[in-house]
Amino acid sequence: MKKQFFSLLALGLASTAFAQSSVTVFGSIDLNVTRSKAGSNSVTGMDQGGYLLPSRIGFRGTEDLGGGLSAGFWLETAVLPDTGASQGALFGRRSTVSLASKQYGELRMGRDYTPIFWNVSHFTPFGTVGVGGSSNIIEGWPLGLGSARTQSRASNSVGYFLPRTLGGVYGQLMFAFDEDVDGAKHQGGRIGYEAGPLNIAAAYGTTPAGGSDFKTATVGGTYDFGALKAYVNYLQYKLASDKQTNVLVGAAIPFGGGTIKASIARSDRSGPGLDADDARQVAIGYVYPLSKRTTLYTAYSHITNDGNAAYVTADSSPAGVPGEKSSGFQFGINHAF
Amino acid sequence: MKKQFFSLLALGLASTAFAQSSVTVFGSIDLNVTRSKAGSNSVTGMDQGGYLLPSRIGFRGTEDLGGGLSAGFWLETAVLPDTGASQGALFGRRSTVSLASKQYGELRMGRDYTPIFWNVSHFTPFGTVGVGGSSNIIEGWPLGLGSARTQSRASNSVGYFLPRTLGGVYGQLMFAFDEDVDGAKHQGGRIGYEAGPLNIAAAYGTTPAGGSDFKTATVGGTYDFGALKAYVNYLQYKLASDKQTNVLVGAAIPFGGGTIKASIARSDRSGPGLDADDARQVAIGYVYPLSKRTTLYTAYSHITNDGNAAYVTADSSPAGVPGEKSSGFQFGINHAF
Amino acid sequence: MKKQFFSLLALGLASTAFAQSSVTVFGSIDLNVTRSKAGSNSVTGMDQGGYLLPSRIGFRGTEDLGGGLSAGFWLETAVLPDTGASQGALFGRRSTVSLASKQYGELRMGRDYTPIFWNVSHFTPFGTVGVGGSSNIIEGWPLGLGSARTQSRASNSVGYFLPRTLGGVYGQLMFAFDEDVDGAKHQGGRIGYEAGPLNIAAAYGTTPAGGSDFKTATVGGTYDFGALKAYVNYLQYKLASDKQTNVLVGAAIPFGGGTIKASIARSDRSGPGLDADDARQVAIGYVYPLSKRTTLYTAYSHITNDGNAAYVTADSSPAGVPGEKSSGFQFGINHAF
Repeated sequence: MKKQFFSLLALGLASTAFAQSSVTVFGSIDLNVTRSKAGSNSVTGMDQGGYLLPSRIGFRGTEDLGGGLSAGFWLETAVLPDTGASQGALFGRRSTVSLASKQYGELRMGRDYTPIFWNVSHFTPFGTVGVGGSSNIIEGWPLGLGSARTQSRASNSVGYFLPRTLGGVYGQLMFAFDEDVDGAKHQGGRIGYEAGPLNIAAAYGTTPAGGSDFKTATVGGTYDFGALKAYVNYLQYKLASDKQTNVLVGAAIPFGGGTIKASIARSDRSGPGLDADDARQVAIGYVYPLSKRTTLYTAYSHITNDGNAAYVTADSSPAGVPGEKSSGFQFGINHAF
Repeated sequence: MKKQFFSLLALGLASTAFAQSSVTVFGSIDLNVTRSKAGSNSVTGMDQGGYLLPSRIGFRGTEDLGGGLSAGFWLETAVLPDTGASQGALFGRRSTVSLASKQYGELRMGRDYTPIFWNVSHFTPFGTVGVGGSSNIIEGWPLGLGSARTQSRASNSVGYFLPRTLGGVYGQLMFAFDEDVDGAKHQGGRIGYEAGPLNIAAAYGTTPAGGSDFKTATVGGTYDFGALKAYVNYLQYKLASDKQTNVLVGAAIPFGGGTIKASIARSDRSGPGLDADDARQVAIGYVYPLSKRTTLYTAYSHITNDGNAAYVTADSSPAGVPGEKSSGFQFGINHAF
Repeated sequence: MKKQFFSLLALGLASTAFAQSSVTVFGSIDLNVTRSKAGSNSVTGMDQGGYLLPSRIGFRGTEDLGGGLSAGFWLETAVLPDTGASQGALFGRRSTVSLASKQYGELRMGRDYTPIFWNVSHFTPFGTVGVGGSSNIIEGWPLGLGSARTQSRASNSVGYFLPRTLGGVYGQLMFAFDEDVDGAKHQGGRIGYEAGPLNIAAAYGTTPAGGSDFKTATVGGTYDFGALKAYVNYLQYKLASDKQTNVLVGAAIPFGGGTIKASIARSDRSGPGLDADDARQVAIGYVYPLSKRTTLYTAYSHITNDGNAAYVTADSSPAGVPGEKSSGFQFGINHAF
C-alpha cells in the first residue's frame, strides 16, 4: 500500500491513493440593501452579513476512527458577495484540525474563535452582525483594544472542548501561541450550562498587548419562555487604564411565521480622557424564513454617541462622527447551503 | 430546533445544524500555447482562456422553496492556471444570491455580469476570449473608458431577469450601487428574442464616470442556417466626447466533427485627437470536441492598428505598438467540469 | 444543444448546460507544535506541514473519453492552517489540465512540479517537510539559486509522462516557457525504475537565471527490506561557480504499529567565499497512523552549520545564525481528506 502510494507520488498524483473524499461544502450568502446614516451623512448601498450567518464558504469533514473517536477538519472563508472579495486570510474564519472523543471531548488546533467570542455572538438576538449587531458599539471590534487581535479569533491555537455528556454543562479552553507577535498570544476559557429553556455561560480571556494585558470577561444567557425568548449579556474589556463595559438585553418573539427581534445595548468606556465616550444602541428587526435554509430579514438600529464615541451601524456606513447619532435600516436575504 | 442550533453554535459548529449541502463544484480549465506578435516583437508562451469558457472554478446550488419558487447562490473564481493564480477578487467572476419564480422571474443580488456584457460575449463565434476574441479591439476592456468599471461586471448590484415563459422573449435589468465610488454605479437592461434558428438582443447601460456618463448601447444576433451559423453585433461606447463603435460579423460552420469559426471586426474611435485610432481584426479558428466537456481548439487572429491604436491579440502578447500590426496564433485545450 | 447553451448563457447561467460535475474535493490539514532553536534563540509555536502531506485543499476530476483516453484537471491550494492563510498563488501548488492515454502516456499543461522535485521529496523518509525535511539544508529552497524559481514547481509548463505499461520504467519530461521572465524557463526530465522492493530514479533540470544556467542533477532510490526501508539520494545544484551537493541516507522501520524514521544528510557548498558554508542534519521521528487518513507524528532534528551557513529546522524557527547550530522538535497531526 505504501509502495503503491509512492509510485503514484512519483507521477505527481500524491494524496489520491489513500484519500477517500468525504468533504462537505457548506456556507451561506447574505446580502442586503442598507441605508445608513452617521451625523448628517447618509449612504444607501449593499452590505453583506445582516443575518446570523455572515457570508462564507467552507469545507469540512469528519472521519470515524472507531471507539468513539473521530478526526475532522474545517476550512472556512469569509466572503463579501457584494463585491466578490474574500475578507482577511483565505481561511481566516476558521482553519482547524480536530481529534474528538465522545467521552473525553475534543482537541482542536489551528485558527479558531476565542472562547470569549461566543457570548457576544450568542446571547443577543442579532448576533454580532448587521445594523442591529451587538458588536457595533464594542470598541476595536473585531480585533480588540491596542495591539490585541484576539477578540473574535486566534491563530496558532490549541483548544479543548468538554464532551457533551456532562448533563448540560459545556465548556472550552484555548491557548494561542504568540510566535513573537505582540497581541497574538491568548489564554481563555468558557463554561456554560444548558437545560430546557435555559442557557447561560461565562467566559474570560487575556492577551498581552503593548506591555499590558488586554482582558475580557463576559457572562450572559438566554431563557426561552415560548412566547418570548429573552437575551442578556454583560461584557467588559480592559487594557491598562482603558476599560469598556457593554450590557445588552434583547428579545425574540415568534410572530406571523417569523420572529420579531429587539435589543437595547449600552457601552460605558472609562479611562483618562475616555469617560465621556459612551454609546447606546436600540435595534428592532423581523426575520421570515422561506425555508430552513433561506431567510428574509429586515432591521433598524439607532446609535447615540456621546463624547468622542463615533460608532456606526454598518460596514457601508459613512464614517462615524464623534458624538453624533448614527442609524441604519436594512432589508436582505440569507441563503445557507 | 433553534435551541439545538445554538447549542452547536456554542461549540463552534455553526451552520452544521440546518445546512444540508447541495453544492455543485463546477468550472473549466483552459490552457493553450500562444505565439503573439506586436509590431516587430513576438513571444511564445502559455495563455489561458482561448475557448468560450475561460478558466474558473465555482460553487453553486439551488433550493426548491415550493410553489415554483427557488433560492440559489453562485460563487465563481477566475483562475489563471498557467501560473495557478486567481484573477481579481476571489469570487470576482460572480458572487450572487437569487430568489427565482418560474412565473415571475429571478431577483439576483451581488456581483454579476452587466446586461451589456452579453451581446459582445454571445453574438460572436469566439466570445470575448482568446486571440480571436471580440473584446481585443474594444477600448478599455474589461472595465470601460475613464473611471468606469462596469463594462463586463458590476458589484453591489440588484438584478431582475424575466421568466422564460414569455414565448421566446428574454431580458434583464440591473441597478448597481456606487457606494460613493466613481465609476461603480450602473443602470442597464437587455431584451432579446429567441425562436428556432433566430436569436437577437439589444442592451443599454450607463455609468457615471469622471463627471460624465459612460454609456454603452449594443444590438446583435445570431441565425443558424444549419450549414452555417451567422453572427452579427454592433456596440457603441461613449464617454463625453470620446466614442467607439465596434461592429463584428462572424460565422460558425460545422466541419469534420468540429466547427470552423471566423469573424471580422472593426472599431472606429472618434473624439478630439482620437479620430485616427481605429482598428480591424480578422480571426479564424477551429474547435474539435473530444467529448461534451473537453475541446481542442486553434485560432489565428490579425489586428491592423491605425493612428495611436495599439491593440494586441493575447494577454501574453508583447506590449502593443501604436499603429503597428499585431497577430496571434494559439492551440489549446478546454476541459469543463 | 448548442442553442440551448447560448440561451442559458444569455441568462448568465453559462457552464451549467454541459458540465456534469465529477469533482473530488481533497486535501490534508497538518498542524503541529514545534520548538525550534537557532543559535541561542528559541521559540515554541505552531507550524503546519510536518508530515509527508503538507496542508492543502484541492479540486480534481477526470473524464473518460473512451478508447483508453481521458481528460483531467487539478487545482490545489497551499494552506497554512495555523493562521488560515494560503501560501503563494491561489492554486500555486498545482493547476493543470491533462490529456492521458493508457498506452501513450499523459500530456499535462499548467503549473506543476518540476521533474527534479520528486527525488528530493520521494527518496527521503521525511519528504521535504517538517523539522526532519530533506530540504532544510538545501540552499534557496524552494525556488533555487539566483533568480531561478523552478526548484520545486514551474508555471507555464508542458509536461509529458510515460505510460505505466513499461514494465516498471516510469518517467517524465517538462518544458516551461519563460514569457520573458528571468529564472522562469525550465527544461527537465526524470527516469526511474520500480520493481518489487526497489525504486530508483534520476532527474536533471536546467533554468537560465541571471545570465547563467541553474542546473540540478539528482539520483536516488529506496529499497524495502521489509524490516527496514532504506533511502538514499544525491542532489547537486550549480549556478555559475556556485555549487551545492546534498547527500542523504535514511531509513524507515516498522515498529509498534507505526514507523520509526531517521535520516542523515549533509550539504557541501563550493564557490568563491562559499567553500566553508556546509551543513549536516540528523533527524529522527516516529509516525503513528490512527487510520489510513489520520496520522500522529513526532520528530527531532539537529543541524550543524559551518562557515556562513545558517540553516534552520522549521518555518517558525528564529532566524538562522551563521555557523551556529539549529534544532527542532515537533509533535503533530495530519488529517487527509
